Amino acid sequence: MAREKESVVGRRGLLAAGAGIAGVGIGMAGGTAIAAGREQEPQQPTPGDRTYPFHGEHQAGIVTPAQDRLHFAAFDVTTASRTELIALLQAWTLAAARMTQGQGAGSIGATSGDYDAPPDDTGEAIGLPPSGLTITFGFGPSLFLDDRGRDRFKINKRRPVALQRLPHFPGDQLVAEQSDGDLCIQACADDPQVAVHAIRNLARIGFGTVALRWSQLGFGRTSSTSTSQQTPRNLFGFKDGTANLKAEHRQDVDDHVWVRRGADPRANWLAGGSYLITRKINMSVETWDRQSLREQETVIGRTKAEGAPLSGGTEFSRPDFELKGRSGPMIATDSHVRVAHPSQNNGAQMLRRGYNFFDGSTRLGRMDAGLFFMAYVTDPRTHYIPIQNKVARDAMAEYLQHTGSAIFAIPPGTQPGQYVGQSLFT
Amino acid sequence: MAREKESVVGRRGLLAAGAGIAGVGIGMAGGTAIAAGREQEPQQPTPGDRTYPFHGEHQAGIVTPAQDRLHFAAFDVTTASRTELIALLQAWTLAAARMTQGQGAGSIGATSGDYDAPPDDTGEAIGLPPSGLTITFGFGPSLFLDDRGRDRFKINKRRPVALQRLPHFPGDQLVAEQSDGDLCIQACADDPQVAVHAIRNLARIGFGTVALRWSQLGFGRTSSTSTSQQTPRNLFGFKDGTANLKAEHRQDVDDHVWVRRGADPRANWLAGGSYLITRKINMSVETWDRQSLREQETVIGRTKAEGAPLSGGTEFSRPDFELKGRSGPMIATDSHVRVAHPSQNNGAQMLRRGYNFFDGSTRLGRMDAGLFFMAYVTDPRTHYIPIQNKVARDAMAEYLQHTGSAIFAIPPGTQPGQYVGQSLFT
Repeated sequence: MAREKESVVGRRGLLAAGAGIAGVGIGMAGGTAIAAGREQEPQQPTPGDRTYPFHGEHQAGIVTPAQDRLHFAAFDVTTASRTELIALLQAWTLAAARMTQGQGAGSIGATSGDYDAPPDDTGEAIGLPPSGLTITFGFGPSLFLDDRGRDRFKINKRRPVALQRLPHFPGDQLVAEQSDGDLCIQACADDPQVAVHAIRNLARIGFGTVALRWSQLGFGRTSSTSTSQQTPRNLFGFKDGTANLKAEHRQDVDDHVWVRRGADPRANWLAGGSYLITRKINMSVETWDRQSLREQETVIGRTKAEGAPLSGGTEFSRPDFELKGRSGPMIATDSHVRVAHPSQNNGAQMLRRGYNFFDGSTRLGRMDAGLFFMAYVTDPRTHYIPIQNKVARDAMAEYLQHTGSAIFAIPPGTQPGQYVGQSLFT
Repeated sequence: MAREKESVVGRRGLLAAGAGIAGVGIGMAGGTAIAAGREQEPQQPTPGDRTYPFHGEHQAGIVTPAQDRLHFAAFDVTTASRTELIALLQAWTLAAARMTQGQGAGSIGATSGDYDAPPDDTGEAIGLPPSGLTITFGFGPSLFLDDRGRDRFKINKRRPVALQRLPHFPGDQLVAEQSDGDLCIQACADDPQVAVHAIRNLARIGFGTVALRWSQLGFGRTSSTSTSQQTPRNLFGFKDGTANLKAEHRQDVDDHVWVRRGADPRANWLAGGSYLITRKINMSVETWDRQSLREQETVIGRTKAEGAPLSGGTEFSRPDFELKGRSGPMIATDSHVRVAHPSQNNGAQMLRRGYNFFDGSTRLGRMDAGLFFMAYVTDPRTHYIPIQNKVARDAMAEYLQHTGSAIFAIPPGTQPGQYVGQSLFT
């Protein structure tokens, strides 16, 4: 847990101190302390030096331009004490605020002189730049009412109506060990070691209060969340997320991502927050790879090289679902782009933020690989469930198996001095 | 399998072609073709543009400065046909030569106009730079003599004497599904999507000839193999590989890494090659994190911040194993740095090239994480087995579980027109 003593020496500053250069001793105040730490360094800033503010109206890691790598973890709370749960959220908040600014998880470190204590920080990110790390916390339905129907933390009366375990979708083959969870943490960074370090240190802080239920590494982002980003590719080799919501489109984000005050009167604590849906989607890549280019493009509804809709144009051209070809519409009626498109779903859009994964091989010698789907939405009942019920039957579904599923309420951002989710407990 | 038709358009050139810019049509000649492809691009070169030659005296990916990310795969050969095995090695060689230079796995691609064929390349690396990709191939003992004692490919008379399944070491808790293999491929790159793409496409080429036995993603390198690199950290938070062999020390590399002609008269085909040992080492990070800084540093024998030996100095100071402290030597007799040090092991050095891994959680809610150890050595009988027998009993061993183990003979490099391992079959 966090200790009182405070240090301002960032991860690189710590290294410098270890080499004999005295650390600075001013009070920590978010960006200021980091800036002070940086002044010790003559190096030029690199993309790895990027930091995002931890505090704000919304949690970081949602409309933040999607970083390249992911470590996601879901936890079960092993205590029934509301006080201990709150203490955990307070400790997590402090550590997350530090780590996202490039500091260690706590102030007792490898150079703090406390030889008799375990260091607060596990150390594997010492010397690495902040790498754009964001840490985002969420609350699962079982935090409010557990599998045995207990309201352990006296919060169920404030449970959002929309925060329900997702229904069974066609083709679901869910594995309990890859699904659900009382709490979640999403760590995104441009360096995977920084993301792993964050999850590991938060899990460590939670030792005795939470147990790691499942976790997922994502090696490549599959969505852009900013107009400044190129569209990446998924393991079918196609661009993914061309039509994704972008942070710059503020009105769309307000309409489709954030929870509005008053939307659910008993859950106003969630205003400014969101809902996160995660789905572990195994892709039958061996089968996919045996399909002709024509078949692949027909299934997706876009060209493989450019990502343009089969109705013509370039990547960002609007698909023309009416345009006829020699044998039916140019964009097949069961193509993924058509079935999932907002124009076919009452205008509903998601902020997708998924990652490619590769978890080894199955017992059949096949690749255990695919897409760890993540989407932030204002309401899963309008923005995810009806759409998933449709895409679960589209032409692409034949090549997919959904093996993990979870939903979390994502509290709004915090201000300095607050802890994440505080509005739920006060 | 590779087709005759050849294309010179690299991954970025393919994108450009898809956007309407004509690809160039000159003959492929390794670096030349790539350079030509680059001339289409106005962008400045980035570290991602780095390429290493595929051909050479030794395979790339051994003394190459260790890239940041790893995808490693071990395969079982499912055919008993020597001809099919050779055909596979030929196809792998062609595809690897292409991919390491930033091209797709084959020439039939998303813009080649072959709509009725599956593309040769799976596509997820289209648009990504080469990212320093190296692909390194190896042959396991079971390729020569399988578990049923069969010499399927008529090569056992040329099996190197030193290529034997590793013995059981103290504390080994090996899992068969994470151990051994007839063939291995190591893909290292600075972008994990590029490394995963390489393994996936080679596995695809092998479909019907090999089955994926196990694979391992490594998110962070734990060794430097060049004096130009900073020493990275393992999941104990300590610098790892400070005393590692470096490529610039040519004589040491010649003495400790490469197999010399005549070293094993029946295996001169391996001259210029090496032996690769892989060990999946699970680290009990939860237990480790509860130890005081003093205990951690005593176990390792170095300081955590700087990585200096406890006998004093800085990271690269020579450890003084004789220096006495108040209660015994400053560097404890069972510390890892002492037990593993070349001076305590007849001067034997390894070229370590390991990576951190995080594979989720165990059934106990612990982290399934640690070090995927890889070391290249001239002879495992002198350079690995005796040392592992000692470090398996050092102070650090209490925090480790070895769960995977494999050994491979790494053939020498190839010249254009040759296939990898050709010297074994001719």
